[in-house]
Formats: sequence, structure tokens, C-alpha cells
Amino acid sequence: MTIDQRNPPHRPTPFAYLDMDRLRRNLSRMQTIADRHGVALRPHIKTHKSIDIARLQLALGAIGVTASKPSEALPFIRAGAPSLLLAFPIIKAERLRRLLALAAEHRTATTFILDSEAGADALAEAAQQAGRIVDVHIKIDVGLGRVGVLPASSALTNLGQVVARNPKLRLTGLISHAGHGYGATSPSILAQIARQERLLMLETRERLGSLDLPLRLTVGSTPTVLATEDFSGIDEIRPGNYALFDLTAQRLGVAREDEIALCVVATVVARNSQHYIIDAGSKALTSDLGPHSSGGLAGFGRVLLTDGQNIGTRLTVSRLSEEHGFVPREDTDLPIGTRLLVLPNHSCPVVNLYDRLVISDKPEEDLTVSARGALN
Amino acid sequence: MTIDQRNPPHRPTPFAYLDMDRLRRNLSRMQTIADRHGVALRPHIKTHKSIDIARLQLALGAIGVTASKPSEALPFIRAGAPSLLLAFPIIKAERLRRLLALAAEHRTATTFILDSEAGADALAEAAQQAGRIVDVHIKIDVGLGRVGVLPASSALTNLGQVVARNPKLRLTGLISHAGHGYGATSPSILAQIARQERLLMLETRERLGSLDLPLRLTVGSTPTVLATEDFSGIDEIRPGNYALFDLTAQRLGVAREDEIALCVVATVVARNSQHYIIDAGSKALTSDLGPHSSGGLAGFGRVLLTDGQNIGTRLTVSRLSEEHGFVPREDTDLPIGTRLLVLPNHSCPVVNLYDRLVISDKPEEDLTVSARGALN
Repeated sequence: MTIDQRNPPHRPTPFAYLDMDRLRRNLSRMQTIADRHGVALRPHIKTHKSIDIARLQLALGAIGVTASKPSEALPFIRAGAPSLLLAFPIIKAERLRRLLALAAEHRTATTFILDSEAGADALAEAAQQAGRIVDVHIKIDVGLGRVGVLPASSALTNLGQVVARNPKLRLTGLISHAGHGYGATSPSILAQIARQERLLMLETRERLGSLDLPLRLTVGSTPTVLATEDFSGIDEIRPGNYALFDLTAQRLGVAREDEIALCVVATVVARNSQHYIIDAGSKALTSDLGPHSSGGLAGFGRVLLTDGQNIGTRLTVSRLSEEHGFVPREDTDLPIGTRLLVLPNHSCPVVNLYDRLVISDKPEEDLTVSARGALN
Repeated sequence: MTIDQRNPPHRPTPFAYLDMDRLRRNLSRMQTIADRHGVALRPHIKTHKSIDIARLQLALGAIGVTASKPSEALPFIRAGAPSLLLAFPIIKAERLRRLLALAAEHRTATTFILDSEAGADALAEAAQQAGRIVDVHIKIDVGLGRVGVLPASSALTNLGQVVARNPKLRLTGLISHAGHGYGATSPSILAQIARQERLLMLETRERLGSLDLPLRLTVGSTPTVLATEDFSGIDEIRPGNYALFDLTAQRLGVAREDEIALCVVATVVARNSQHYIIDAGSKALTSDLGPHSSGGLAGFGRVLLTDGQNIGTRLTVSRLSEEHGFVPREDTDLPIGTRLLVLPNHSCPVVNLYDRLVISDKPEEDLTVSARGALN
């Protein structure tokens, strides 16, 4: 437990507190892994949505950023990210008009993804309207069952040909996200999922060999990247959560509690015979139980006590109203007014609830969550 | 099913769509109930967080508004709400400085709540600093087990005396919120909870009779208010959710599906053998299963199909990533690009994810969610 944890900033609660020391260590850890294995790191900014943090990632060696929705990407293009991978299937050309114009203005390299002919048509139309050719990756479903074509399907080879033939599209890679890793119940299962992802991606590239195109392989997810030592054949990794981590990362064995860089600082505002009532509810913590509805955690956050007498004690947020959290008292006796830290189940949607991340006592030092609420 | 449902506005998805006709009907329905029973209506604005909707409520006859956190209340004071009840226990005087100054400027009547001597001290200090006396209600725990003193406790009578003796505080009422009604598994259980709340509040006022103060009784929650016909002795009701309703209100039997005024409009962006993948995930729908972690609903939202062939078909969002929702296909065959409506489990935290509520094809008509993210 660090000094920061015992003395979170003194600001009106609830607020989202970012421990900058932990953040910097987390960023360095991932860049070191990428460098050691010779893979490019393209962090997903959906976790922090902050230009300041993206700049730290780029300064350490990230080659660019990953974003989901076009509006989420815009602040990072404006901030000078050299390249952008938009990892969400765009199926309407008009949705890219603003992004492509801004990227041209800032000379930002862009890559889009698709898993259907509808997506290829939309991207080709967007390229046509922008008077250019766009780089695309085909999304491969390596087991999450979400977006992506199946590696061994005829849909894959058909789509490869459709894209390769389209004069407005340049097929430059294959992309996967092994989000089913969040459901892993042991480190060995998680490692196995990471291994399968890599092998499936290598096989898929081989199956498209007749296209005679150099295809980058880009894989994602913090847990799978941290659960493997073998990146041979992989060109790029796209983890996002590693910047902050959370209780899910700890459950999966890829982060220690003292590596979790985000918490919500809250105050006990009432107490009854069973519970402390804190001023952080679902609008401060989310009701999220883990990425991709993965679950496996007890409650809605782990409470760390920060005052002298109770340091080391952990409690659980067992229930949430919108503005209140219920914390079973167990064998503690905390007075009204006690401040405490809540470690979140899943940092990414928590950040999305806040306009600012607090890093110190000084409001002027807050980081802006530039892409909060950027849903389309 | 209304026209609106078949033809939601054509705007980039996902967006929060507010059906103004349904909203107006919901607002009128509640005002009619209040008028018929001779109780004042003081709607909780945490549901919609919109000045425009609060103005509609006030125009229909609401006597003022209820808000949770001080920052949530500020836009409504600025907008001219004649009175404000801040229904969250304030335990630090400084948290009210800005609110009291703004309320004085706008001549807004204010009432605060407390359930502890710490709260009484904080409110008295805030009053002292503002050079005035403040009106307070004691919060009574009628069964939710959250904030409030127990009706039959010595804590109640002690606190009553402490408040009555404090020259900076004017004890003007008792307040309750029977949020445990959200856990009701039948209409008769819900009605029973509403009945108990009323009786407990009447008894509690009697127990404080020796203070010889006229005490208003204000009770809350949409489900309990709609489940009872007996308001005798009650002065004020504070429902919030009734403006929009949601699947929880339908589950509890207090609203029909076609009274739910809020939905998220989404698009099918991918499909695989099991699921449609839509562009609304936990950052567009929340992972909330119901108020106060009440649950009882299947999945993360009900999908209504809006195109000609499939009108009437309902599907379920079974799983959420941050930007994607998983919808089991059942026996439908929807193409990529299909737009659909998602009815939310719990409208209040959904609104809190959006800066604007869409009401038409025209962006300039959007309602601003003025108190979004107002957490402290």
C-alpha cells in the first residue's frame, strides 16, 4: 500500500482518483513487454479516454492509438496521435466523414475494421467520398463470438477477395480481440486462450495467402497479452485496461491490488446496524461486474480503509443505489465522515462517468476525460 | 405501439430517445394522482436531470423539485425552481456553501435532510455561514435499510430534540423513501410496503408530538406512490422515475411497456450464428439490473424491432461489452444495418450516460441533460 492510498487528495467526494505513480509504472510495464517481444504497442484509449495519458503512452513508444467509435477517436487525432486504428465495425460511410477529414488535416494514419460485405461497402464509400484509399483490417472471431469472421470459414476467404478486389480499400491486416479471456477461471486457461488466439491468427493469415498481400496481425486485450510470453508472428498488441487495471485484472492474476491505478474516493454519510452508507452509488461506480458481462467478483467494488487505525482492512460494496453504496460493516466501527477508497470491478466504464480524473489536491491538475460519452 | 416507436428519429446511433408524448402523459398521470389525493408533488429530477422536463413538471403543478447531490440541484435553482428538497444527507457544511448562495440569489426555498447529529452539526454550520436558518427534515428508515433513523428508536427522539433545540435549524418535516419496494415480487407486496410506509410515518410524527412542531410528511418512490390509493396524513410525494419509466416499472406492474418514454436507439453492426451485435453496450445502456440492485429482469434491456416485417417482435440484450451489445437471434434474420429500440432496465442511470436526449430528427431540439455527472 502506497502513501497515495493512505492519503488520497482532499476533494469533495465522490471523485475518480488516478494514482499517477501506478499509472506510469503500468504504462512502462506494457511498453517493456512490447519492446522485449518486438511487437508494436497500440493502446486502446477507451479505458482512460484522456489525451494526457495517451501522450504518456506515445512518449514511451506506442506507435499510435486504438479507439472504438469515431467520436471517441477525434480528440486523439486533434492531439496529434500519429496513427489511429478504429476497432469498431463501421457500416455507414457518413459516420467516417468527419474523422477522415480531421485525420487528413492532422496527417493521422488511419485503419478501419470490417467483418462483412456491408462493412466493405461502407468503407469503400467513405474512401470514395474522401477521395482516397483507406486501409482496412478484417476482424477475426477467435472465440468471443462477437464481431468477426470465423478463421476457417468460407466467409473469410470470400471477404478477403471482396476487399482485395475493391479499388478503394487496401487490405493491410487481420485483427482479433480475445475478450473471452475475461471469463477465464485460472491463469492456465487464460494462457491457453492467448495461445489459441495467436495460432488462429497465424493460420488465418495463411488461409489468405493466395491474396499475396502483406497482412499485419494485431491482437488485443490486457489479460491475454499479460498471460503469454509467445508473440512470434504477431505484429501489434492493443491492450487498453493495463493503464489502470481493476479488480477484474486482479481476479485474472494479471495485476496486483497495488497496481490498480484508479479508485473512487467516497465518504461514509450514514450508518445503520448493518451497513455503512457511502456517497458513491451506481452513478459513481457503475453496476458493472466485469468486461463482457464476465462477472466472478463479489459486489460492486472493494473498499480500502485509509485512516490510521483501520489500514489494511477491506470491505465490500454489496449493493448500489444511484447515489449511495451499501457497505456491510463486518467488525469495524467507522464514524460518519470517514473517507475510503473503492477499487472498481471494471475501470473503463467508471472513467466514462467522470468529466475529470483527480490526481492531486489541486483542481487545476485534474486530467480531462476528453472522450467521455463519445458513443457514436 | 406508437408511431414514434416504429419511426425513431434518424440520428447516429446509439442515442437516448425520449418520446415526448409518453413523457407528457406520464407527467400528467402523476400530477392527476397528486391533485386527486390532495398531496403536493415534488418530483425527483435525478431521473431526467433536465431543466426542460422539470419546467413541464412545475407547469403542471409540481411545487418544486427534489435533487440528490448539491451540484445536481444547481441547474434547477438557476432555472427558477421555486423550492428544492435536497434528499441526500449532507455531513460537511462546506458542501452547501455554493448551493445556499445560489438559492438566496434566486429566492429558492430549500430543505435539507439529516439522520445523525453529525448531519445536524453540518447543516447548522452551513446555516451559520450563510447567516440564516435552514429548514430540515429528519430521514426515517421505513425498511430500505439505507439512510434514516428507525421509527421506534430512541435515536429518533434524541435527534428530534437535538434538531429542535438548534437555533440554526428549523425542523419542518419527516422524509422517507421506501426503496425496498423495488424488490417487491407482486403488486400486493408493493401495496403493502406503501401502506407500511404511510403508517410508519404517521406513527413517527406522533412519537415526536412532544416537540409541538408542525411536521410535513414526505414520502417517495414511483412504485409505492402508484401502488397505493391511500395518502391520508401524507403531505408530499417525491417520485422521480415516473417521468420516463423503464422495464423495472413494468415488472412491478406500475407501468405498461407503451408508457416507457426512454429508449436507446441502436443498430445491428455485425451478426454471427448466435447473436446480433449492436452498437450499444454498457456505456450506452449501463449494466444496471434495477434500482437498489433489485434485479428480477432478464438481461440488460428489451429489444423492440421497428421495421415493417418484424414489428411486435421482442428480443433481449443478453450480454454487454462496453461498446457492443449481444442480442440472441432467436428465430429472426435481421440484416446488418437494422435499427432497433432498446428499452432500459433502469432509466435513471441511462440518462446519466448522455449529454443530450434526442426527441426528433433535429439536433437543435435535443434536451440537455443539465445535471449529468453531478456527483457531489
